[in-house]
Amino acid sequence: MILNKIITPTLLIDKNKCEANIKLMADKANSLGVEFRPHFKTHQSRIIGSWFRKQGVNKITVSSFKMAEYFVSDGWKDITVAFPVNIREIGRINELSAKANLNIVLENVESIKFLNSHLRNNVGFFIKIDTGYGRTGVSFDIFLIIDKILKQAESSEMLDFKGFLSHSGNTYYAKNMEEIRQIHLDSLKKLALLKKQYIDKYPKLIISVGDTPSCSTADNFEGVGEIRPGNFVFYDLMQYKLGSCSFNQIAVAMVCPVVAKHADRDEIIIYGGAVHFSKEYIEVDGVKVYGLIVELTEDGWKQSGENSYLVKISQEHGTIKTSQALFEKTNIGDLIAIVPVHSCLTADLMGGFLTTEDELIDHMSGK
Amino acid sequence: MILNKIITPTLLIDKNKCEANIKLMADKANSLGVEFRPHFKTHQSRIIGSWFRKQGVNKITVSSFKMAEYFVSDGWKDITVAFPVNIREIGRINELSAKANLNIVLENVESIKFLNSHLRNNVGFFIKIDTGYGRTGVSFDIFLIIDKILKQAESSEMLDFKGFLSHSGNTYYAKNMEEIRQIHLDSLKKLALLKKQYIDKYPKLIISVGDTPSCSTADNFEGVGEIRPGNFVFYDLMQYKLGSCSFNQIAVAMVCPVVAKHADRDEIIIYGGAVHFSKEYIEVDGVKVYGLIVELTEDGWKQSGENSYLVKISQEHGTIKTSQALFEKTNIGDLIAIVPVHSCLTADLMGGFLTTEDELIDHMSGK
Repeated sequence: MILNKIITPTLLIDKNKCEANIKLMADKANSLGVEFRPHFKTHQSRIIGSWFRKQGVNKITVSSFKMAEYFVSDGWKDITVAFPVNIREIGRINELSAKANLNIVLENVESIKFLNSHLRNNVGFFIKIDTGYGRTGVSFDIFLIIDKILKQAESSEMLDFKGFLSHSGNTYYAKNMEEIRQIHLDSLKKLALLKKQYIDKYPKLIISVGDTPSCSTADNFEGVGEIRPGNFVFYDLMQYKLGSCSFNQIAVAMVCPVVAKHADRDEIIIYGGAVHFSKEYIEVDGVKVYGLIVELTEDGWKQSGENSYLVKISQEHGTIKTSQALFEKTNIGDLIAIVPVHSCLTADLMGGFLTTEDELIDHMSGK
Repeated sequence: MILNKIITPTLLIDKNKCEANIKLMADKANSLGVEFRPHFKTHQSRIIGSWFRKQGVNKITVSSFKMAEYFVSDGWKDITVAFPVNIREIGRINELSAKANLNIVLENVESIKFLNSHLRNNVGFFIKIDTGYGRTGVSFDIFLIIDKILKQAESSEMLDFKGFLSHSGNTYYAKNMEEIRQIHLDSLKKLALLKKQYIDKYPKLIISVGDTPSCSTADNFEGVGEIRPGNFVFYDLMQYKLGSCSFNQIAVAMVCPVVAKHADRDEIIIYGGAVHFSKEYIEVDGVKVYGLIVELTEDGWKQSGENSYLVKISQEHGTIKTSQALFEKTNIGDLIAIVPVHSCLTADLMGGFLTTEDELIDHMSGK
């Protein structure tokens, strides 16, 4: 690994770990007999997309129409934009649906009314279902609204009902594996109820679920037709703490230069702040942390024996609270590697990756 | 204002407010008799830089060498990189110092030793002083370290001592104006002590201070040679709540499409999340908020009568807790304007601005 070339904060990616994560999830979907439609919002990269292609993936999920354009222009032909449709982007929707099989997500009648008079091509749609996360979507048990949406959609020649889509984002706030399992099973139960209600009328309807904690740890996917995990491609400190992955599955780490040391308080200041990591944090023993310090090795990084964390960040500064041993062996100008709390946001901010084998990897927000 | 053209989250800028903010601070520096070296990390824009030029500004502050390159290539000739020097960027430092008057910030002997043997051109330097913020810098009263730094620097033919630089970032956490005033006066007192200690040996030394709350509200800048505020160019919700600005001085607002509504809980879901706003929050009545909803007008926005806030954000989703009145008058596909908590981070994520007069404005991280 040519660390000498790194002069500013850099998002390192271990290609082997990343490809292993992709293969494991693809194999799991295969053995479960569910469609694998990975979410590309985590990596937003054409090169990493090509690693999915090698595992036979040809259907993907994205979180914006702009992201859909990015991947359609790279040859992807079957895309779900898993975000409540933004009708102001009707121009993009019409362009995209001319080039690819596009699925959108709906959760209200107003959007359908608008689409009915503006869509120029066939578009598949999922109804967004809330199974308990409480962010958005129609509650799983309010058939009245679902019926209205389906009825409105039937009047459209362009809208094609695909099924129900949910995201149990509440697993991200689970306290342990058992809680993740409970949320997942509860969600499955609710979606099964929904399926039972509508399967006779729509025998091909698909149940689509997606959070990384459930997809990584659960074995029961009864009734589910497709899974859309995204974060698993890299994982991160949050997922590790949740129990979604082993430490060695974390495929990205930030590498940041040391610019100052404060012996009176065992703190090291790095060049690396909110514009690199994001301000996403988790709490460890009551302290907000933005990343965990790891040890750089010849071919990547490994878990350090010490628990040193990135504990404060401002725009470009990061403060690491170190053990005395780490403090003493670290010099001004050294590089420190840090596993970020939330890899999706860090990757979006960094706008690119460097593999441990010294290859540059693209990101849609490329800077 | 051509709102119809806005289809995705957009950072709106009111050029009149922004230019008024610049003029007010330039006039204040002038009347105080201090040099005005504004921090360009907030806007990172060449066009906005040109608005500063109109006020006679020719010295600027930035937070990275990359940002210095961006502005040097636009003709700026006198730049302070107000971040503890990252010696791994020696190549950039040598290139920049060949083209412009470059000042760097030092706080340890190790960096100087490295620079002594690697600098190819003259570079000014400030010693970073900690007057109580506790992020980084040498504590104002540890003359022993300051002496060592100055002694080491004297052995260099390239390093030219300019003075002491501090940033009272702790004013951002102040609870009220009085607390800001106390922090500012305390910082001035500490810097005066330092000045007294070194002025005989370095009669031209400059005291450089910079936080927006102090620069916006204080009148006493005794002993100070230059001010480096940055955020004041836009201000934001955090600064407004602190008392640094009036509401009408806030020069930026996010504009986001409405994609879902939840009548059971008076919540509106917007297309606009952590990758647009950042996850910076403040607490209002014990609740984390990421932005304040304002009312769009013919030529910009105005304070709404209601206190509706952006209360949750994930990668692209934002949740607004609304009053019933706002909920009822808002439709799917409408645009909602939101004053962000921290304009520097939001601008960095958005990578560009749209003026209320429909002009596109650049940002270094342009997407």
